[in-house]
Amino acid sequence: MLLTVEEFRAAEKILAGLPGCYEDTHVMIFIGFGFLMTFLKKYCYSALGFNWLLGALVIQWALLCQNFFHMTDGVIYITKLTIIEADIMAATVLITFGALLGVASGAQLLFIAVVETAVGCANIYLVSDVFKAADVGGSIAIHTFGAYFGLGVSMALKPKKVEGQPDPYQHELNGPSYVSDVSAMIGSIFLWIYWPSFNSALTQSDAEYQRAVVNTYLSLAACTVVSFVLSSAVSHHHGKFDMVHVQNSTLAGGVAVGSVCNMHIGAGGAIAVGIGAAVISVLGYRYLTPKLASWGLLDTCGVNNLHGMPGIYSGLLSVLFAAMATTEVYGSTGLGEVFGAIKEDERTASTQALNQFIALVATLAIAIIGGVITGFVSKLSLFSPLENKEKYDDEVNWELP
Amino acid sequence: MLLTVEEFRAAEKILAGLPGCYEDTHVMIFIGFGFLMTFLKKYCYSALGFNWLLGALVIQWALLCQNFFHMTDGVIYITKLTIIEADIMAATVLITFGALLGVASGAQLLFIAVVETAVGCANIYLVSDVFKAADVGGSIAIHTFGAYFGLGVSMALKPKKVEGQPDPYQHELNGPSYVSDVSAMIGSIFLWIYWPSFNSALTQSDAEYQRAVVNTYLSLAACTVVSFVLSSAVSHHHGKFDMVHVQNSTLAGGVAVGSVCNMHIGAGGAIAVGIGAAVISVLGYRYLTPKLASWGLLDTCGVNNLHGMPGIYSGLLSVLFAAMATTEVYGSTGLGEVFGAIKEDERTASTQALNQFIALVATLAIAIIGGVITGFVSKLSLFSPLENKEKYDDEVNWELP
Amino acid sequence: MLLTVEEFRAAEKILAGLPGCYEDTHVMIFIGFGFLMTFLKKYCYSALGFNWLLGALVIQWALLCQNFFHMTDGVIYITKLTIIEADIMAATVLITFGALLGVASGAQLLFIAVVETAVGCANIYLVSDVFKAADVGGSIAIHTFGAYFGLGVSMALKPKKVEGQPDPYQHELNGPSYVSDVSAMIGSIFLWIYWPSFNSALTQSDAEYQRAVVNTYLSLAACTVVSFVLSSAVSHHHGKFDMVHVQNSTLAGGVAVGSVCNMHIGAGGAIAVGIGAAVISVLGYRYLTPKLASWGLLDTCGVNNLHGMPGIYSGLLSVLFAAMATTEVYGSTGLGEVFGAIKEDERTASTQALNQFIALVATLAIAIIGGVITGFVSKLSLFSPLENKEKYDDEVNWELP
Repeated sequence: MLLTVEEFRAAEKILAGLPGCYEDTHVMIFIGFGFLMTFLKKYCYSALGFNWLLGALVIQWALLCQNFFHMTDGVIYITKLTIIEADIMAATVLITFGALLGVASGAQLLFIAVVETAVGCANIYLVSDVFKAADVGGSIAIHTFGAYFGLGVSMALKPKKVEGQPDPYQHELNGPSYVSDVSAMIGSIFLWIYWPSFNSALTQSDAEYQRAVVNTYLSLAACTVVSFVLSSAVSHHHGKFDMVHVQNSTLAGGVAVGSVCNMHIGAGGAIAVGIGAAVISVLGYRYLTPKLASWGLLDTCGVNNLHGMPGIYSGLLSVLFAAMATTEVYGSTGLGEVFGAIKEDERTASTQALNQFIALVATLAIAIIGGVITGFVSKLSLFSPLENKEKYDDEVNWELP
Repeated sequence: MLLTVEEFRAAEKILAGLPGCYEDTHVMIFIGFGFLMTFLKKYCYSALGFNWLLGALVIQWALLCQNFFHMTDGVIYITKLTIIEADIMAATVLITFGALLGVASGAQLLFIAVVETAVGCANIYLVSDVFKAADVGGSIAIHTFGAYFGLGVSMALKPKKVEGQPDPYQHELNGPSYVSDVSAMIGSIFLWIYWPSFNSALTQSDAEYQRAVVNTYLSLAACTVVSFVLSSAVSHHHGKFDMVHVQNSTLAGGVAVGSVCNMHIGAGGAIAVGIGAAVISVLGYRYLTPKLASWGLLDTCGVNNLHGMPGIYSGLLSVLFAAMATTEVYGSTGLGEVFGAIKEDERTASTQALNQFIALVATLAIAIIGGVITGFVSKLSLFSPLENKEKYDDEVNWELP
Repeated sequence: MLLTVEEFRAAEKILAGLPGCYEDTHVMIFIGFGFLMTFLKKYCYSALGFNWLLGALVIQWALLCQNFFHMTDGVIYITKLTIIEADIMAATVLITFGALLGVASGAQLLFIAVVETAVGCANIYLVSDVFKAADVGGSIAIHTFGAYFGLGVSMALKPKKVEGQPDPYQHELNGPSYVSDVSAMIGSIFLWIYWPSFNSALTQSDAEYQRAVVNTYLSLAACTVVSFVLSSAVSHHHGKFDMVHVQNSTLAGGVAVGSVCNMHIGAGGAIAVGIGAAVISVLGYRYLTPKLASWGLLDTCGVNNLHGMPGIYSGLLSVLFAAMATTEVYGSTGLGEVFGAIKEDERTASTQALNQFIALVATLAIAIIGGVITGFVSKLSLFSPLENKEKYDDEVNWELP
């Protein structure tokens, strides 16, 4: 029944090459995103409830939308691989939800989720099948797309300032309590823990898988240390940490390394990527988000700083690494081995770099335009948009104790 | 050291067939059940503490009780497989604990756990070895058994109404607070996430395993969406969600698909099962539980709506699918492939359907009778039953800060 | 695509032999330790934040320190195995953090973490490569080292009693609230769940792996039951449980079995080890910790009772089992199979027992001396040590809502 040492070592080799199970991604989607968004003091039920409802809806809808492009004789076969992909698509919609947290009604969120899933699946097809861009961790097609779709909707939902009314860009409930910030850490830390599994879930070989896990692990670790240091350095009260940075910027290293984590970027490269992500994200939260809010562009969780800008950064890094790829450096397997998502070896480094860039720009354009249009449609009274005084409040949607 | 693409693909095939590790089930038992039961405002310590104590006790006792039926030369060999089975048995007792949450003393709970484990293990032997019923996810032998054993005890513990005393069927501490409802969501979501691992843990082939995972995943997703919609439709205040439904009914899809998840029920079938489970569970919480409570049949967590009725529903579905099984539909392997639990192929579809039905009825009878008897014995003063004013209160058992 | 029953059974054999993935250990380090330390009423942000910051820093630094001893041609190769080892090293530092929780400043903690990682990695080299001691679960090199390094620092940081000032050995914030004790349970239970993965992560064969998992599982289960019983027996108010015991002593079974879990100790042996651990730990919390505190030796989490004394106990058990090892009992593979960490078979049982003992004593000496020296250096004003009134308070380090 039990294995010998030799059989066990063989099994260990196999284990080392196993892609991250969908279970880890599943925890990220439903515990990670759900609890991260409980940071608002009176929106915990809605954060957890809508996260769950939207996630459960999108994974079913995404199974249809994604596999529409990959049917066998008109039939969709569902396996563990397809349900990982569905879970990953749910992340896109939940990133958008983060931007709109507290300001969109349940009906608006459901409408946005349904539209975004369809558009997002088409965009993934474009990025990976048409442009054949390397994007194993989804920093382009998932993080950038989800964040800018959300900001697009947010532009459309920009509240009107009315003379004599309270400022709609400020809201007393748009902030944390001591307890809600602790429960948000459950989400944040689980996202951080399983991010290497997320980024490596769709790798195609053992070597690629190990690179994806180790690079993501190192990028996150470096990003975390630098986020704390920077948070303390730029804080309003000298030397104090800001929970917003701790809960969010620490994760930017996972986004930033996403598109390149399976490439030969080296341990030093991964750490450098993570440091850059922390700088972008903490400075974004500290200086950019208040500026955008003062223009009425609301982004409750600051997804621009966690998913948006780090996603663009990752896309640009993928352009850079594609351009630098040479047969000599990466051995006879060439680009095909470097870019896991690409099966053919015939493309040159510069073609691949160009494709990466086009994929990034196309994603940004589709996300923003799609988001703005969806946002305007969602303002129909059919979707019962919220009054300003109903925002960030569980009272609207829940029977409270 | 690293694998080639070919070796990796071979490993992926193996991965696809790996049964859910016991670790996932372990999280469900100790985090899932434990935190789900923290929803009461002043019973969080007891919920977590008793869940842990009972779980740790039962897994040791179940290792003896279960393997008593499967010894080799009088010796019990303990492997990862036997500890998965022990963890699953702990679920039975913790479902019963859910019915009695806040109303039974620690000594009563320990007594009930010891008796129920012994009776439950004998019932599992009856269901799987004597009747050879298909029940891979334990909806009959674990969920139905645990729920009705608990309701049996509850019948025996029914408090007496006394003239001039407060109504013992009502209790001011029998309700949630805002914070306790959030911590309960930790349990609820982890149960939801790992349920596919639970239902597939004892599958016997890769094909059966993949069916069990995918069907459970789909049933839960559909059940969740419908639970939210129905919760809002039947709510006391039009359109608001009820946390009780969100925390519990969302999980009924995992119970309902349990006995049939490894069969060829198809994606549409799995979704239909999940929808049915949501309807049964939400309507049960909304209309049946208050009715039972008004008769003094207390069921604090409403396990009848989460485990009891969905378990019976799953048992009846297994009768239906057994009756429908044909060699033509399921290929040359016939019933043996359809019913993972059965090794012999000689039985006909109708014999199997009858066996499924008998297993369900026997389980119900043993659970209710066993529960009522155990409940009456637990009222001995030896087990220090609680006064009405001590119920739902951590004060009785804990040194509070 | 799918496997046959035969292929699946082969895969199951492989699964059974897979070492605990690093993901489980990762959850223990960042969720487990982090949330366990949120039990203080006004130190939750710091507990979670510093745990994360220190963990993220140490895993990077440990990758260098540990692999300094195992380079290939001057290059460090990072794989999933090396990142498991880095995570395990982080545990050492976080145990030390537990002793100092609330009393050390951020700068002191960072300084201590950097020094301790370097010293701890050298000690691991001594224990496993020089003395070739069996210590698969790290009870000697991780738990004992971390706890006594922390107590060493604590000796150096002993606050001075000043006439007319409040007693520095007492602090009103050094205690839990109802909510913080619930969030601490998240950490405690996750540590408990994944401990078998931690103890088995570095096993070398399937048989050894299965023993490590099953023995740890049983030791923890027995320890939990006995911890509850003893907690209630020795409580200040007869029969009530104490949350400190429930959160901590329940885990002592994992520490106590650590050094011997991969040996042939049998199910009864594992349970006996767990019972002993519960007795040591609960009595330590009840009687020893208050005594030490009255001498000014602060140990906020009581790591002496959870990691220190159970670690020494485990080390002594490893001496005992080494001395008892005979070729007849363990088959022709002799000591080599019994002591997973040892590759050569030439040593006798008594030599091995002696080596185990020296490894334990050396670890204790290095930890205490290293801790005291590091503690004294950390009192430099450069590391901004805390005033007594700043202790156990998030206010010092965080922008609070």
